[in-house]
Amino acid sequence: MSYQAPYKDMQWLVEQAFTRQNLAQLESLADYDLDLANVIIDEANKFASNVLAPLNVIGDVEGCQFNAGQVSTPTGWKEAYAQFRDSGWIGLALPEEFGGQGLPKYIAQPVNEMWLSSNLAFVMFAALAQGGSEILLKFASDKIKARYLTPIVTGEWTVAMALTEPNAGSDLGALNTKAIPQENGNYLIKGQKIYITYGEHDMADNIVHLVLARTPDAPAGSRGISLFAVPKYRVGDGGEVGEFNDIRCTGIEHKTGLHGSPTCSISYGDNDACIGELIGELNQGLMAMFVLMNEARLSCGMQGVALGELAYQKALQYATERIQGSGTQGERVAILEHPDVKRMLLTMRSETFGLRSLGYQIAALIDVSEQSQDADQVNSAHRRIALLTPIFKGFATEQANRMAGTAVQIFGGMGFVEETGIAQIMRDARITTIYEGTTGIQSKDLLHRKVRADKGTALSELLVLIREDVSSVKQYPALQTSAGRIEQACDELVATLDQVILNPSKSVTDLDCVSVPFLMAMGGLCTAWQLACTAAKAQQAMNDDPDYFANVVALLDVYSTYSLPHVIAELSAVNSQVIGLNAYRFS
Amino acid sequence: MSYQAPYKDMQWLVEQAFTRQNLAQLESLADYDLDLANVIIDEANKFASNVLAPLNVIGDVEGCQFNAGQVSTPTGWKEAYAQFRDSGWIGLALPEEFGGQGLPKYIAQPVNEMWLSSNLAFVMFAALAQGGSEILLKFASDKIKARYLTPIVTGEWTVAMALTEPNAGSDLGALNTKAIPQENGNYLIKGQKIYITYGEHDMADNIVHLVLARTPDAPAGSRGISLFAVPKYRVGDGGEVGEFNDIRCTGIEHKTGLHGSPTCSISYGDNDACIGELIGELNQGLMAMFVLMNEARLSCGMQGVALGELAYQKALQYATERIQGSGTQGERVAILEHPDVKRMLLTMRSETFGLRSLGYQIAALIDVSEQSQDADQVNSAHRRIALLTPIFKGFATEQANRMAGTAVQIFGGMGFVEETGIAQIMRDARITTIYEGTTGIQSKDLLHRKVRADKGTALSELLVLIREDVSSVKQYPALQTSAGRIEQACDELVATLDQVILNPSKSVTDLDCVSVPFLMAMGGLCTAWQLACTAAKAQQAMNDDPDYFANVVALLDVYSTYSLPHVIAELSAVNSQVIGLNAYRFS
Repeated sequence: MSYQAPYKDMQWLVEQAFTRQNLAQLESLADYDLDLANVIIDEANKFASNVLAPLNVIGDVEGCQFNAGQVSTPTGWKEAYAQFRDSGWIGLALPEEFGGQGLPKYIAQPVNEMWLSSNLAFVMFAALAQGGSEILLKFASDKIKARYLTPIVTGEWTVAMALTEPNAGSDLGALNTKAIPQENGNYLIKGQKIYITYGEHDMADNIVHLVLARTPDAPAGSRGISLFAVPKYRVGDGGEVGEFNDIRCTGIEHKTGLHGSPTCSISYGDNDACIGELIGELNQGLMAMFVLMNEARLSCGMQGVALGELAYQKALQYATERIQGSGTQGERVAILEHPDVKRMLLTMRSETFGLRSLGYQIAALIDVSEQSQDADQVNSAHRRIALLTPIFKGFATEQANRMAGTAVQIFGGMGFVEETGIAQIMRDARITTIYEGTTGIQSKDLLHRKVRADKGTALSELLVLIREDVSSVKQYPALQTSAGRIEQACDELVATLDQVILNPSKSVTDLDCVSVPFLMAMGGLCTAWQLACTAAKAQQAMNDDPDYFANVVALLDVYSTYSLPHVIAELSAVNSQVIGLNAYRFS
Repeated sequence: MSYQAPYKDMQWLVEQAFTRQNLAQLESLADYDLDLANVIIDEANKFASNVLAPLNVIGDVEGCQFNAGQVSTPTGWKEAYAQFRDSGWIGLALPEEFGGQGLPKYIAQPVNEMWLSSNLAFVMFAALAQGGSEILLKFASDKIKARYLTPIVTGEWTVAMALTEPNAGSDLGALNTKAIPQENGNYLIKGQKIYITYGEHDMADNIVHLVLARTPDAPAGSRGISLFAVPKYRVGDGGEVGEFNDIRCTGIEHKTGLHGSPTCSISYGDNDACIGELIGELNQGLMAMFVLMNEARLSCGMQGVALGELAYQKALQYATERIQGSGTQGERVAILEHPDVKRMLLTMRSETFGLRSLGYQIAALIDVSEQSQDADQVNSAHRRIALLTPIFKGFATEQANRMAGTAVQIFGGMGFVEETGIAQIMRDARITTIYEGTTGIQSKDLLHRKVRADKGTALSELLVLIREDVSSVKQYPALQTSAGRIEQACDELVATLDQVILNPSKSVTDLDCVSVPFLMAMGGLCTAWQLACTAAKAQQAMNDDPDYFANVVALLDVYSTYSLPHVIAELSAVNSQVIGLNAYRFS
C-alpha cells in the first residue's frame, strides 16, 4: 500500500480548527465552508495517492541528473508537474486576480500535508510558489506584480530562493553577492549561491530566482541586504519571456535524502549579463525574505507531520502483516500484537495527531489574521502565529526524525534494507531540522524574539488559554489524569519563565545554553494541549462514532504517559544552573 | 582529519576499570598490567587510524558487489584483512594454545572500540571470530576444536553466524532449516538463511558457518534447535581444506548503511551435499548460540560508544573550522563558540565518556568472571554482566543513533551532503538498535530474565553500589548537585521496582508496555553513575592534569543537566497506569 490521506483525521481536525478559530464569523470566507473543504481534501487525496506517491520511490532511487548546466528530474516528474499545474493546485491559496483559487489557509493546509506526505522531494516547488507570491504581493512594484505573478501562481514558472552562500548559511548577514545599479533602474547581479532548491530543472519555462544581494554602498551585515527578482530568462515589459539571463547551474548536491529534489549551486552573472529587479526597498531584503521564510517554516513544520504520518502508515502496515513471536496463548501473531510495537506505533500516532491539530489551528489563525476586520483579533492572531511558528517548525521536524527512526525500528532488519522504502523517510526527514533555520536558530528566535522581546506577553496569553482548556477537559473523568499532567507541565513552565527565560539577570549566553530544551518543552506542551482539546471533543462526540472517538481519547493517554514526562525533563534542564557547558575547555 | 583513538580517555578509563574491579588480585593476569595495556592501545591506534579509517568511506561509497554467487569486498579490504590477520589482532583475546595472544578482555575492549570507530563495516568479522571461538571452546568436541579453532583464531578462516530466516527473526524458535543425521555422525544441512554478515566474501580461504537447524524429530519451537559447524569448504580429519560444501550465496542486501559489510542470503544444501558437524548437545543450539550472542551484544554496545566517538570527533572538527555567526563582541566566530553547538557536542561527549567507562568496567568484570578463583566473586560478576548486557546493548545503540543525528545537525546543510561523510555514521548506526536483538528484545530480556526472574537481586546489588558511590561523590562540593540528581533517580527507580517491575500482580502485557522506557532509564542511570565515579576520581587527580580533569568533572554536570532528567521521565512512564495503549483499537 502506498500513501493514503488520513481523510477522517484531516476532515475532523479541519472542522476543529474552523470551529475553534470561529472562521464562520469571517465574511470573506462565507463561500469557503467545511463542505467545500471536504470536497477539496478528497480531490487532493486522489492526486496525492495516485499520481505523487508512486513517484516518491522513483525519485529516491533515480535522483536528479546534472549535465553541462542542465538538471533532469526523475522519470515521471515532468509529466506530474504538468498535471499538478494544470489542475490548479499551485495557486490553491493565492489570489484569483492572478489565476489562483483564493482558498483560505485552513483548507490549503491539509492539502499541503498530503503533498508533503506523498512526495516531499517533488512538491518543494509548491511552498516556494506560495511564499514567493506572497513576497511579490506584499513588496513588489505593480510593474513586477503584473509581469511575474500570474505565471508563478499558475505554475507556468517556478520560484527559487537564493539565500545561502558557502560562507553565509545561518548567518545571512555575511553574504557577498553583488547588485550593481544600472541607469534603467535595474541591477547587475553577480555572485555564487548554494543550496537552491529547484534552482534549475526541466519542468517549467522559466525560473524566478529571489536573490539576496548587496548594493555597492550598502551597510555591512544584515542591514545591507536587498532582494531581487532574477529570472532565468529575462521578462519583457509585456511579460514575454526573453533572452537568457546569465544564470548558470554549476552542480547539484549528492544528498542523504530528498534525491528527487535538485539542490543547486548557481552562478549569477559570470558574463556580467544577469539582470535583477529590486523588490521592495533597498536594504530591506531580509525583512521581505522573512515573509517567505515564515511561510517556509510553517510548511516545514507540516513536513514533520507529513513524514510522521507516512512513517506511521508504512510501519502500521508492516506490523499488521509481519508474523513474528507469540501472543499470550502461545499462538503466532502479527507484531502489531506486541505491546512494545503498539507503544512505538501509538507514540507516533499521538505525536502526529497532536501536531497536525496544531498545524491546522495555525492555518486557521492565519486566515483570521488575513481576513478579520477586527484589529485586536488580527493583532492577537499575529502574535500567536509568530510565537507558534518556531515551536512548530523546530519541534515537529525533530519529532519527524524520531518517528522515522521508530518506523525503521518497527521494520527490524527489513528497515535497513533499502527496498522496503522505510529508510527513505529517515533519510528525507534528516534535512527538515536543518533547512529553513536549524532547530538551534528556531530556539533562539523563540526565546529572544518571540518571548523575551515582548516580555512574555504572547506566551502568557497562550498559557492562559492552555490552562482554560485543560481545566475544562477535567470535567471528563477519563481525562483527569492526563489533564493533571499537563497542568503540572504548565506550572513548571511558569516557574521556568520566572527564574530563567524572562529573568533580566540572565545573559544571552546563559539563555542560549537552554534555548533548545525550552523549545522542545514548548513543543511537547503544545502537542499535549491539542490532544487534550481533541480528547474532550471526542468525549462529547463519542456516540457519533464510538470506535473512532475512543481512539482519539486513547491518544491523549498515550502521549501524556510516554511523551509528556519529557517536557518536564526539558524544563528541568532549562532550570538548571548550567555549569559544565561553560566550564568545559575544548583543547 | 580522520579518526584518532581518544588515547588519553581510553588509557585513563582502562586504568579506572582495572583498579575498580581489582584485576591486580588475579594471579593469571599478573603479566597483563596497565603498561602492557598502554603499549597495545598505542599499536592498535596506529592500525586503526592509518589502515582502517581511510577505508571507511571507500567501503561506504563502493559497497560490496555480488556476482554469480561470489561477493567482492571494496577496494583495499582484502589487503587490510591480510594485514589485520598477520598482525595477530583477531586472536588478541583468544587462547595462546590455538594461536591467540590470550590477552584479558579489559585490554581487548579499547582495542575493539578503535576497530569499531575506524571502520565498523570492515571489522564485523572480528566479533564473529571472537564469539565463534568461544562457542567452540565451550561446547565443541575435541575433534572439532582441533580442526577448526586454530585457523579461526589466526584469521586464516572467518566465522559467519547463520540464524535468521525470512520467517524467523527475533523469534528464532520458528526457524525451519533441516539437519538430517548421517551414519557417520554428521548431518546433511538444508535450508535458506538471510542477514548473514560476511556469509560470503573474498578475504579468507574458508568460512565456518555456525548454523542453527532442526533435526527431524526435534521438538517444536526454540527447544528443538541445534547448532552446527558448516564450513564453506569441508574440513578433513587432519584439518585440511577439502571440497566445496554446497553452500551458495544467493544475494547480498542493498542496505541503508554498513555498505562495506556483505549481508548475505545463503542457501545450504541445494544439491543435498552440505555437511554439518554438531556442536554440543542436540537441541541445545540456542543456548550455545547465546554465548556468541552475549558476546555480540556487548560488542554491539561498544559499537554505540565507537560511533558516538567518531561522530563527536568529526562534529568537533567541523565546529572548530566552520566560521558562522557572531560572538558576544560581534566578531565572527567558529560555531564551536555558540552555546547551543557546545551543548550538542558536550552531550555527545558526556554520553560517550560515560558509556565507554561502563563498557570498560563490563570487560574487566568478564576478566573477573573468567579468571578469579573465588566462586562468590565469579558468581557476582556473572550476575552483574548478565544484568548490564541488555542495558548496555540497548541504551548505547539508541544513544548512538541520537548522537549520529546530532553530529549531522552540527554540520548543518553540509551534514546532508554525502561527501562530508557525517551522514554515513547516521546510516551505519541505524542497524545497531536492530541486529543482535532489537531494543525491544533487550528490554524484555532485562525486565523479565534479568530482573524479575531473580526477584531483583542483581539489580538491588547494583543499586546499593550506585548509592554507595554517589554518596561518596558528595564529599566534593562541586559534585553535590549532580550527585543529588542521581540519588533522586535512584529513589524513583526503587519506587518503580516496587510498584511495577517486581509487582507480582502485573501481567506480562502490562510490563511489556513499559519495558523500553525501563531499559532507557537504567541506561541513563548507569551512564550518570559512571560519570559520577569518574568525576570523583578526577577531583582526586586534579593536580596531575588540571585541564583534563576539570573537563571530566564538567562532563558530569553536562550529563546531569541535560540527560539525567530524561531518566526521571522514563521512570514516570514506567510508573504510569498504561491505559491508552490497551484501549486503542487498530481498525
